[in-house]
Amino acid sequence: MTYKVDLNSDLGESFGAYHMGQDSEIIPLISSANIACGFHAGDPLVMLRTTQLVQENKIAMGAHPGFSDLMGFGRRNLQISTKEAAADTTYQIGALDAFAKASNMQLQHVKPHGALYNMACKDSKLARAIAQAVASYDDRLILLCPGASELALAAKASGLRVAKEVFADRAYENDGSLVSRNKEGAMITDEHLAIERLIRMIKDKTVVSIDGKTIPIEADSVCVHGDGPKALKFVKEIRQTFQQKGITISPLADIVD
Amino acid sequence: MTYKVDLNSDLGESFGAYHMGQDSEIIPLISSANIACGFHAGDPLVMLRTTQLVQENKIAMGAHPGFSDLMGFGRRNLQISTKEAAADTTYQIGALDAFAKASNMQLQHVKPHGALYNMACKDSKLARAIAQAVASYDDRLILLCPGASELALAAKASGLRVAKEVFADRAYENDGSLVSRNKEGAMITDEHLAIERLIRMIKDKTVVSIDGKTIPIEADSVCVHGDGPKALKFVKEIRQTFQQKGITISPLADIVD
Amino acid sequence: MTYKVDLNSDLGESFGAYHMGQDSEIIPLISSANIACGFHAGDPLVMLRTTQLVQENKIAMGAHPGFSDLMGFGRRNLQISTKEAAADTTYQIGALDAFAKASNMQLQHVKPHGALYNMACKDSKLARAIAQAVASYDDRLILLCPGASELALAAKASGLRVAKEVFADRAYENDGSLVSRNKEGAMITDEHLAIERLIRMIKDKTVVSIDGKTIPIEADSVCVHGDGPKALKFVKEIRQTFQQKGITISPLADIVD
Amino acid sequence: MTYKVDLNSDLGESFGAYHMGQDSEIIPLISSANIACGFHAGDPLVMLRTTQLVQENKIAMGAHPGFSDLMGFGRRNLQISTKEAAADTTYQIGALDAFAKASNMQLQHVKPHGALYNMACKDSKLARAIAQAVASYDDRLILLCPGASELALAAKASGLRVAKEVFADRAYENDGSLVSRNKEGAMITDEHLAIERLIRMIKDKTVVSIDGKTIPIEADSVCVHGDGPKALKFVKEIRQTFQQKGITISPLADIVD
Repeated sequence: MTYKVDLNSDLGESFGAYHMGQDSEIIPLISSANIACGFHAGDPLVMLRTTQLVQENKIAMGAHPGFSDLMGFGRRNLQISTKEAAADTTYQIGALDAFAKASNMQLQHVKPHGALYNMACKDSKLARAIAQAVASYDDRLILLCPGASELALAAKASGLRVAKEVFADRAYENDGSLVSRNKEGAMITDEHLAIERLIRMIKDKTVVSIDGKTIPIEADSVCVHGDGPKALKFVKEIRQTFQQKGITISPLADIVD
Repeated sequence: MTYKVDLNSDLGESFGAYHMGQDSEIIPLISSANIACGFHAGDPLVMLRTTQLVQENKIAMGAHPGFSDLMGFGRRNLQISTKEAAADTTYQIGALDAFAKASNMQLQHVKPHGALYNMACKDSKLARAIAQAVASYDDRLILLCPGASELALAAKASGLRVAKEVFADRAYENDGSLVSRNKEGAMITDEHLAIERLIRMIKDKTVVSIDGKTIPIEADSVCVHGDGPKALKFVKEIRQTFQQKGITISPLADIVD
Repeated sequence: MTYKVDLNSDLGESFGAYHMGQDSEIIPLISSANIACGFHAGDPLVMLRTTQLVQENKIAMGAHPGFSDLMGFGRRNLQISTKEAAADTTYQIGALDAFAKASNMQLQHVKPHGALYNMACKDSKLARAIAQAVASYDDRLILLCPGASELALAAKASGLRVAKEVFADRAYENDGSLVSRNKEGAMITDEHLAIERLIRMIKDKTVVSIDGKTIPIEADSVCVHGDGPKALKFVKEIRQTFQQKGITISPLADIVD
Repeated sequence: MTYKVDLNSDLGESFGAYHMGQDSEIIPLISSANIACGFHAGDPLVMLRTTQLVQENKIAMGAHPGFSDLMGFGRRNLQISTKEAAADTTYQIGALDAFAKASNMQLQHVKPHGALYNMACKDSKLARAIAQAVASYDDRLILLCPGASELALAAKASGLRVAKEVFADRAYENDGSLVSRNKEGAMITDEHLAIERLIRMIKDKTVVSIDGKTIPIEADSVCVHGDGPKALKFVKEIRQTFQQKGITISPLADIVD
């Protein structure tokens, strides 16, 4: 039996004179890039360069829309209306798609960023607004989000394909949601354990929750970070172990139906 | 002999709680809307509403990209690089096109805004950067700009169709360029004279320059303003006089080849 | 017995080419101006002009700091840390004070704006961060806020004087807090009733809550709006009725101890 | 004979999640910090932290106002009016001074940033607008700028003290202005030579221009960079050599009269 999984990472987060991330080093190691669209991070020139890097490395690209809050890097909850959420999503997808189109590429997916992602995972109205905005723009786009989330439900209801995202370095609650970063034990710091957990998620479709319970989980894509030498080394180890265990890294479009 | 001309206006310039313009009143009177794209004016919700107004009134829509300078409303010269100009243009066209796409509409044209327009009319490198960005995005888009400008030359060189824009309320230099607003006589304040000048531009393809010289000019589109009751009344008079004189108002796509 | 009350209004909310409010008309009618500081509204030029208007009309001025959210006009809840709230407050007070200082004027008070005001009325940690930032900047500044609020408690704990603000057009809960705008009956639309309520608040120190209960309330300052002809007429009626009823309009500094 | 000179550096340029510079390493090596004020770089939290670092290290602090262009880091020429320049300057000085005041510190100086600095060095109207804004705010502030510049002239005309700034790594024209970065030979890359030039500027009050001519120059302050290990090493060498040559490093206030 063969297994396939996507590796995704948040990229294109530099802004003007401000540099962030190691895009040119992480891109060759992953299969799907989530590119910031200028609201929480990124600017037109950064989006152009990131699109070019993605194209040179033949990986897939997706939009990573976030809150219009550069000072907070889109990580602060902002109570926007569902109309605003929908319009902000449409705007950001289109802005990034312009760079794809100008390079004869296509967007593969959309993954909300930061606080927008977290809020939409729990708020069905916000999730629906985002999913419908994506579907109205292009219903061939895949929505990348946790399998156990309002976003996944809303995506399906809007006729979108869902790619279920898991995190190597995060603990899970019994209901399959992420343990809040504020809670003890939220982060999996042992890298060996983290990779073992990933393999079990991919092959057995289960994970051990923070309460010690084995729960079902589906993993179409693993989110990896590209900041710092440690992060890059960890991604390389994931790739190597996956290869040994018969898990192929493929873009989302090859994985979700 | 029949004559055709487009009426265009800069719209969608509200931002958040800030209201600007009389979009719902001017849109039924024109044939092409230049919609702000969020850099110098406009926001996602405003772009959505303006697109809907345009659709309801069955007129054509175009992108109106400007400098990333909300405080200056895109009217202050900003020395951006040609790379920045190209990427900013790509970004803004895509952002607006997303709202068109989500409403099953198509962008007809692009018209740079304010200081970007003025600078690109005179700076061949800037003009080329913008024109190439438009053409790379979609070479069916029409570039709306003065016939006697670097923008027009660059558009043609990039394989784009050009729609030649004239202004009812502005005087012209001998070379067909606009007289700078700082110079005396720059504005044509007599509305009767302004309309007579327009008719001559459309029918005879000439205008009398500020120096009193009859110079050649081509008018595919007339730029009208939508601010204040006086502006609306003026547009209505233009429409009425055009009808009497056998000039049909049509969107750009019906005019340029 | 004589009664004194302040009339305050949110001003200086224009931004760049965007005009908001009727500052030159409302300023002669009030005693304290809350001036936006460039985060949710206002810009340096607007702040300069508003300061000059305030000076010409010899009323008092205060800082009106808000969330860094121009698109949302500071009306959308934003989950900032208490450190961010404190630093944002310090920044905005200083920015406005610079215009006061350059005109040989002094800031009288600080009133948080919109969502920041609403959140800080209920969140003791946020309230304390703001109050301490004000006190660290200048402990002679008055904090303008509802008497029954965490902001009032925090101001006193920080050694600041509190000016208790009431609203003519809003209903009150039994605990003296404002009825949420979403609830039916939140707004007092009958202007005659609104003024009667104000007089009772000022003279009897009571108001009838939305549940019909007579509750204690203190009114050092009445918040009035300056948008639209109706608002200006209402302020004029308030002034006239106050005069008839022996209530003098005075700046906060003459009212709070 | 003893010599004194100030070492200044542009600091506090981080923004939100974006880190820039090595403030904690460079601050102990210099005598005056130019702190970004939130327009071209910096945010309230960064300004707070930088003020604290400056206080801990007992060096002097000044405001570093720039264009409202975060995307361009204030390095792109922006054609603002003199009224805007003055109001933007007032705003930014006040915003930074708030953090100084809250820490019982005082601003020592103002140094315009980037394109605003370059433009104001050559444009007498812009220079006057900035100098008058500084003087109106507090005429004890020192303006830090090249000795041969419109800014220096305007500062004197406004009653401000001027601190004459020189650059270790830049070539000079015959008139004492900086050679444009676009011209060959604009940068002094040999660090040994750079330090020799500095010593000559300080002791002999001369420098050899790009044309080989010995021209007069005055050096109250040397601008040093804090980016990268090479920059830090260079500042340490400057300090060491200055010590050997009998040049004391002192804040501006000890140097200018």
